[in-house]
Amino acid sequence: MNPDNSHPGRLLKAPESFLDASGIRQVFNEGKAGRRDFIRNAFAAAGAAVAAPLALSAPGAPPPDGGDSNILDLPAHSKGLGQPVVTDGYGKPSKFETNVQRRQSPGLTQTTQASVSFAPLQSLFGIVTPSGLHFERHHQGWWDIDPSKHRLMINGSDDKIVKSPQVFTMDELMRLPAVSRFHFIECGANTGMEWGNVAVPTCQYTHGMISCSEFTGVPLRTLFEKCGVDYKRGRFVLGEGADGSSMTRTVPMELVESGEVFVAYGQNGEMLRPENGYPLRLVVPGVQGVSWVKYLRRIEVGDKPYGTKDETIHYVDLMPGGRSRQYTSIQECKSVITTPSGGQVLLDKGFYSVSGLAWSGRGKIKRVDVSVDGGRNWRTARLESPLLSKCLTRFSLDWVWDGKPALIQSRAMDETGYVQPTYQQLRAVRSTRSIYHNNAIQTWLVQESGEVKNVQLS
Amino acid sequence: MNPDNSHPGRLLKAPESFLDASGIRQVFNEGKAGRRDFIRNAFAAAGAAVAAPLALSAPGAPPPDGGDSNILDLPAHSKGLGQPVVTDGYGKPSKFETNVQRRQSPGLTQTTQASVSFAPLQSLFGIVTPSGLHFERHHQGWWDIDPSKHRLMINGSDDKIVKSPQVFTMDELMRLPAVSRFHFIECGANTGMEWGNVAVPTCQYTHGMISCSEFTGVPLRTLFEKCGVDYKRGRFVLGEGADGSSMTRTVPMELVESGEVFVAYGQNGEMLRPENGYPLRLVVPGVQGVSWVKYLRRIEVGDKPYGTKDETIHYVDLMPGGRSRQYTSIQECKSVITTPSGGQVLLDKGFYSVSGLAWSGRGKIKRVDVSVDGGRNWRTARLESPLLSKCLTRFSLDWVWDGKPALIQSRAMDETGYVQPTYQQLRAVRSTRSIYHNNAIQTWLVQESGEVKNVQLS
Repeated sequence: MNPDNSHPGRLLKAPESFLDASGIRQVFNEGKAGRRDFIRNAFAAAGAAVAAPLALSAPGAPPPDGGDSNILDLPAHSKGLGQPVVTDGYGKPSKFETNVQRRQSPGLTQTTQASVSFAPLQSLFGIVTPSGLHFERHHQGWWDIDPSKHRLMINGSDDKIVKSPQVFTMDELMRLPAVSRFHFIECGANTGMEWGNVAVPTCQYTHGMISCSEFTGVPLRTLFEKCGVDYKRGRFVLGEGADGSSMTRTVPMELVESGEVFVAYGQNGEMLRPENGYPLRLVVPGVQGVSWVKYLRRIEVGDKPYGTKDETIHYVDLMPGGRSRQYTSIQECKSVITTPSGGQVLLDKGFYSVSGLAWSGRGKIKRVDVSVDGGRNWRTARLESPLLSKCLTRFSLDWVWDGKPALIQSRAMDETGYVQPTYQQLRAVRSTRSIYHNNAIQTWLVQESGEVKNVQLS
Repeated sequence: MNPDNSHPGRLLKAPESFLDASGIRQVFNEGKAGRRDFIRNAFAAAGAAVAAPLALSAPGAPPPDGGDSNILDLPAHSKGLGQPVVTDGYGKPSKFETNVQRRQSPGLTQTTQASVSFAPLQSLFGIVTPSGLHFERHHQGWWDIDPSKHRLMINGSDDKIVKSPQVFTMDELMRLPAVSRFHFIECGANTGMEWGNVAVPTCQYTHGMISCSEFTGVPLRTLFEKCGVDYKRGRFVLGEGADGSSMTRTVPMELVESGEVFVAYGQNGEMLRPENGYPLRLVVPGVQGVSWVKYLRRIEVGDKPYGTKDETIHYVDLMPGGRSRQYTSIQECKSVITTPSGGQVLLDKGFYSVSGLAWSGRGKIKRVDVSVDGGRNWRTARLESPLLSKCLTRFSLDWVWDGKPALIQSRAMDETGYVQPTYQQLRAVRSTRSIYHNNAIQTWLVQESGEVKNVQLS
C-alpha cells in the first residue's frame, strides 16, 4: 500500500495490482534466484524418481520416498482445510488487492459529495470494470434509494406530444422485454487536467473517469410506444434524476429511435450500484456520462433542446477567443496505454506486453497503433477482446525495451475513419482553455531508471 | 429477506432481487392505485403551469408557484446532500439487495469446506456473473494465497517431453501477452439432483453451479513455446492446484493447441477472487469446472491421460447396468429459464418477458426455442446479448399469461447442430443413476395461483 498515491501532482510509485514497485523488484529477484535452485533441486529429485510425479510438484513437496520429513515446509494452504463457502453470501477481493481502489483526487472539488473517484485503470484487465471499482462522479452525493418506492414517469412538454403519460414502478419496468449490452461510460471531463498541461501522475487520474459494464434494461423506444409518443413533434428527450441535484439532460430523439438508449436497472449481472444510480439510470451509449442520468425519475418528450444548466454553463467547450462551442455530447475516439503507464516502474530491459484501452462514441474501434518513439514510427496493435460498438476494446503490442528512454503512445481509429488527434492537432482547434472532451494522444515517458512519467509533447 | 429460501426440498417464495413475493404484490397494487392519482394530480398542475416543468417531476415535487408548502413531502434523497464518494475504495451492492446471495445447500455435503454455494441465477441479468456471486465448489476450502510467493512450474513427465522446464512468478506471467475472453464455467454436477427426480425448488439450486466471467491470462500455448514442449509426444496436460486437495486434472493437448486454454489471473477486470483460485487458475473453455484447476501451481505434459482420482472415481457418468462411461469433460448444450422460475410468483395475468440462459461447451448458441405448453409447441426466442463461443447467451420471449397452468421450457441448439435433450431422451441413454452432466430440458410449472414450481415431465 502506498497511501500517497492518491495525491496527484507528484510522480509516485505505481498502485500495482498486489505489490508496490519495490515489492515487485524483490519478488522478481527472488524469482530469478529461486527458480535456478528450485529447478535444479526439483529435477534432481525427478531424476531419482520418475514414477513419483508429485515430487515435481512445488517447492517443499514431499520427497519421492513418501517420507514426510519436509512436509512441514509446505505452505499452510497446501496442508489443511481452507475457508468454508462464503456464508455472508457476497464475496470480496483478496486481502492482497486492497491497493486496487478507486481514488478521489483531494482538492479537485470542494466537497466529497460533489466529487469524483477515479477507476484504477492501471490495475484492470480486459474490458469489464468491476462494479466496486467503477468511477464515480456525483453532483450532490449518492443515495441508496428504496426501489419499491421509486417511480419513473414519462410525460410530454405538452399534452399532445405524449398521448398516454405513464408512471412505472420498478416491478413494471422489470417485467418488460430487456436488452443487455456492453458499453463504456466516460465523463466529459475525463483527462480534463491535461488541457492545462498538468501532468497528473498516473492513468488512474488522467483517464480514470471511464468504466465499462454490461448494462441491462428496457429500450426507451419500448416505453415510448406504450405511452404513445408523437415522434414527429417530439424530437428531444429530457432525463431527470431523483437525487438532490435533480440532474436534467437533453438527449436527441434520433438516439432513442435507433433503439440504443435504454433505462437500465442491471449492471454487470446484478442491480446497479447505489453510486451508479440504483435503482434506475439512463444509458446513452457513446454520449458523455453526465447524460446517463442516475436515479432516473422522469423523462419528458419535447420539441426543442432543453438547454439546462449543465448543458449551457457546464460541460460546454470553451474555444479560442473565449467563445463557447454549442453543447457537445458524443465522446470521440480515444485510447490510452494502461501498462506501462505513469507511476509504474519497468524492472529490467526485455520483453513487455504494452496494453491499453480504446473506445469511440461513434461505433467500433477499427485499429489501434502504438509508438515507442513519440509518434515517429507506429506499429498496429492486436485487439484482444470482443469488438463491440461504443464499448472498450483492449489492445496490446509486444515490445522489447532496450533500457533507453522511450515515449510510448497509442492512437485509435474508429469505424467512421476518425483518427485520435495529437495535442497539437486538438489545440489548433480548441486552444488550451477547455475542460471537457480531451481525446488527445497520451504520451508516457519510460525513463532509463524504468520509472514511467506523464509528459506532453509540444 | 427470506432466510428459509436456502433450504431445498420445499416450495418457497422467490428470492427476488429486492422484494419477496408479498412485497412485490403490495408495490404492484400501490403502483396501480398511485399511478392514477399521481397522473391526475401531476397533469392538473401541468395544465396550470406549462412553463414550470419541475411541477411534473415526481410525487411531492414543489408546486408551480415556487412555494415550498409541500417540499417537505419530497423524499430525503431529493432534498439534500447524499453520501460522499466511496472512501474505502471498493463499492458494495445496495442494502436492498442483500437477499441476492450465493447460497449453500445445507446437508448436500458433509463439511462447509468441501461444499458448494450456488449463484442466484433468478436474480441475475445479462451474461456476466458478478464475482461476488460466482458459484463456489471447493474440495478442501478456499485460501487467500500470497501472490508474491506463488509460483507456476511447467515440466514434462520425462525430461524430453519438455526441453526447458520453468518456474514462473506471478509477475513474470503478468508481463506476457494476455488474452481476455468471456466464458461460462459449469460444474459437471450442476443440475445433478434432478437425475433422481428431486425437484429442487429454485433455479439457484437446480442450475446455480454455472457462472460467466471475462477471464484474462496467458495462453498455455505461449508458456509451452517458452518451455519447448514436444507436441508430438506430449498429448496430455496435467494441471495441479496448490490447495490442500491438490486437485489434478488431465486436459487433452488439442485444446491447448487450439489456443483456447489459458492460465488466468484476471476475472471481470480485476484479479481472480480467492474463492475462484486467486492468484492463478486454469481456464479450459467448454470443459467442466473441476478441470479449471484453482490455485494452479504446476502443469505437467505427458504422453497419456493421467487418470487421476477425480477422473476415475468421481466426475464419471454411471450408465445403465452399473458401468461407468469413460471420463467426459465437455459440457454439452443446455439452457434454463430463469424468469419465471421455481419459487417465483406471477402476480397477475398479462404480459411477461420469459428470460433465461443458454450455453454450449462446443461453441456458440445457434437458437433457443421456448414452449409454454410442456413441449408441444415451440417459439424461437430472441438472443439478447453478444453471441460468444463457450459463453452464456441471454434469451427472451414475449408471453401473455392467461392465468391457466402452464409448463414452460427452453430448448437450446448450438452451432454444431446439437439439440438439448428431453429427460426422456437423456434417460434412454444414461438411465437414472448418474450425478454428472445432466443437460436435459428443465420444466417449470406456472400454477393458477401464479406460483412457479419445478416439475419433471415423464
